[in-house]
Amino acid sequence: MALIVQKYGGASLATPEKFLYVADRIIKEKKKGNKMVVVVSAPGDTTDNLIEFAKKITKNPAERELDMLMATGEQQSIALMSMALISKGYKAISFTGAQIGIITDKKYTSARILKIKGVNKIKNALAKDYIAVVAGFQGVTEDEDITTLGRGGSDLTAVALAKALNADVCEFLKDVEGVMTANPEIVKDARKIDYLSYDEMLEMASGGAQVLYNRCVEFAKNYNIVLHVRGTFTDKPGTIIKKEDKKMEKVVVSGITYNKNEAKITILNVPDKPGIAAFIFTKIAEADINVDMIVQNISQKGTTDISFTILKKDLEKIEKVLSVIVKNIKAKGYLMDDKIGKVSVVGVGMRTHTGIAAKMFKALAAKKINIEMISTSEIKISVVVRADKVDTAVKVLHDAFNLGKRNIKSEKI
Amino acid sequence: MALIVQKYGGASLATPEKFLYVADRIIKEKKKGNKMVVVVSAPGDTTDNLIEFAKKITKNPAERELDMLMATGEQQSIALMSMALISKGYKAISFTGAQIGIITDKKYTSARILKIKGVNKIKNALAKDYIAVVAGFQGVTEDEDITTLGRGGSDLTAVALAKALNADVCEFLKDVEGVMTANPEIVKDARKIDYLSYDEMLEMASGGAQVLYNRCVEFAKNYNIVLHVRGTFTDKPGTIIKKEDKKMEKVVVSGITYNKNEAKITILNVPDKPGIAAFIFTKIAEADINVDMIVQNISQKGTTDISFTILKKDLEKIEKVLSVIVKNIKAKGYLMDDKIGKVSVVGVGMRTHTGIAAKMFKALAAKKINIEMISTSEIKISVVVRADKVDTAVKVLHDAFNLGKRNIKSEKI
Repeated sequence: MALIVQKYGGASLATPEKFLYVADRIIKEKKKGNKMVVVVSAPGDTTDNLIEFAKKITKNPAERELDMLMATGEQQSIALMSMALISKGYKAISFTGAQIGIITDKKYTSARILKIKGVNKIKNALAKDYIAVVAGFQGVTEDEDITTLGRGGSDLTAVALAKALNADVCEFLKDVEGVMTANPEIVKDARKIDYLSYDEMLEMASGGAQVLYNRCVEFAKNYNIVLHVRGTFTDKPGTIIKKEDKKMEKVVVSGITYNKNEAKITILNVPDKPGIAAFIFTKIAEADINVDMIVQNISQKGTTDISFTILKKDLEKIEKVLSVIVKNIKAKGYLMDDKIGKVSVVGVGMRTHTGIAAKMFKALAAKKINIEMISTSEIKISVVVRADKVDTAVKVLHDAFNLGKRNIKSEKI
Repeated sequence: MALIVQKYGGASLATPEKFLYVADRIIKEKKKGNKMVVVVSAPGDTTDNLIEFAKKITKNPAERELDMLMATGEQQSIALMSMALISKGYKAISFTGAQIGIITDKKYTSARILKIKGVNKIKNALAKDYIAVVAGFQGVTEDEDITTLGRGGSDLTAVALAKALNADVCEFLKDVEGVMTANPEIVKDARKIDYLSYDEMLEMASGGAQVLYNRCVEFAKNYNIVLHVRGTFTDKPGTIIKKEDKKMEKVVVSGITYNKNEAKITILNVPDKPGIAAFIFTKIAEADINVDMIVQNISQKGTTDISFTILKKDLEKIEKVLSVIVKNIKAKGYLMDDKIGKVSVVGVGMRTHTGIAAKMFKALAAKKINIEMISTSEIKISVVVRADKVDTAVKVLHDAFNLGKRNIKSEKI
């Protein structure tokens, strides 16, 4: 018997039929004798529709009131899910964030959980054989103002509850069967990864495999909570994400990820003086623009080119900033390029295996794919290539590192 | 400067435009220097849509969860209304029933308010010049379970807040300009009533003028809270409902109401023995059927006919009960008639004026309208007539008692 926290996203809760299906999925685990805590997001497009209604009233809704509004979606889901479970003959009880005292800071629309005060309410319900259904994404300040946790907030609720309840596992039910070695739409023989370390999951996510939000994985890493990404529509185990162990290290490369949402900026002929890079990236941060990869080569004749990538959606915003920067540091100018893509190879085994980078570059070269930027971390190598070469690069690398289904045996050891 | 509680129904909040319109209406009062507390219902059809979704999951949703679900509608309204007010440059803050501690009993879907614990939150907001926007229809139990107050629940929230805050007036904003002497769809020169006593309003409502729910009026009567029913789309004063005073007594008849939703049941040849009537109406009450008028004539040859009216929607339900009753009390049988209507004349002046009933019956007789049942209270006389005669009866009585616009001067004194 285990204590399981399960989290279901809004897409799994778009219709009455889906609520009933998910209820059966929960009951399946309950029947095995497990104690079940279920975290749900708002049904289907509910949150989007609410925001749309609000934006018709005012373009900039007051944030406290926006949270008050958005929190209703998850409250609907907990009520509907509890009804579904009860209608199937099981004891179930819903809780809002306020009711179980998910206390957050006052940063409306992107609050951080500080503590869970009323976790005993859930423990008592579980002790009486209830399935506890908890609203994701929401909390309250100490003054009882309703807050929301921002993107991926329901994932965070689930993992925070798993910690507070000392759960055995925190499961994320998805419409995919787990984390894949590569996007199956690009790589036909992509396969499900059985185990990932927290760091690998973080690198996979930042590389574009948006299965779990990083805030959630970081929280799980900090408190050593076992995560399980699995399919809503299958009983098969999915991908377990947990503390790194020996078995994982034997797998050199776990997966290939990519990202086509970034653009490359190059500032030309930057004077090579201390403090210049700091100046550039402070200005960019002040404009609330996130920078991903940064590459600076050795200096020639006292100047150097600095390249970095940002999200395409920030391109318009950065133009003003760049003009200011170029003028201030007396650079020659800047280039913007939105026809690029990033491809990454991720795996904890890289730490102990050599030659991964070489193998990666060689595989790409064989297909005449030019590498425009390179950036590496301990367990990831990322390259920037032309946008129209991304799919080929992913396929080539997936093959080069033997990640396909046909290689399952040799990979697993 | 006054403290005003205003209540807006869901029909006034169906679209973003309507939220903005109502915000202006609130600001108009605020600008006069009044302290404003606004109670809102769920936007448009929100509650109905939620219930419909729930019923697709299960025909009998668990009541605790149904309240959890329904309460989200009003929460949306308070958030949206506060946004609208803030966007127009005013300070506004929303509160759920839980946040201001509207404590109720545990009777889910039709809970009763026991007390308002957190009224100081509203007082503090008002002191800081905020417009307080409060969710109608909802409360919480002492254990923080969310409850709803049943039909007319938002009206009740408004009047309970008016009491707790010692408000000067509790306003109900409607798409009509006030309580009318008769339904203007039937009587062309029907006019708005300026003043009504609580009892008159109660009799008007039970007669079919569903402007305010009786629970709300009874509460106001108990605590002597001045109610004001007025139009959302006009600045003119509407109908003030307050403690009876001399001025009101001079108005003999305040209005004519009618109800076409009832059916008449007659139990034939009921043995005239003590306890029989009690048996009949206990059985009917046990089946959860509401009885309105009851008429029993003098007994002839040891038996009597007992007639009463019920809502048409309960007709199917009562058939089974009637068979049991007839068999048990050895009556001859029963008749059901759904082609009837009830017409009532209401006015506190009846207490001191004689001949009102005679005048009423005479007016109806002159139009050859047959009276099938009569029932009287201190300030109301109701008759049952054929359904197709109801409109004529209302018109005739409106004229007979000089309630039309052309008589305003003679009426007002």
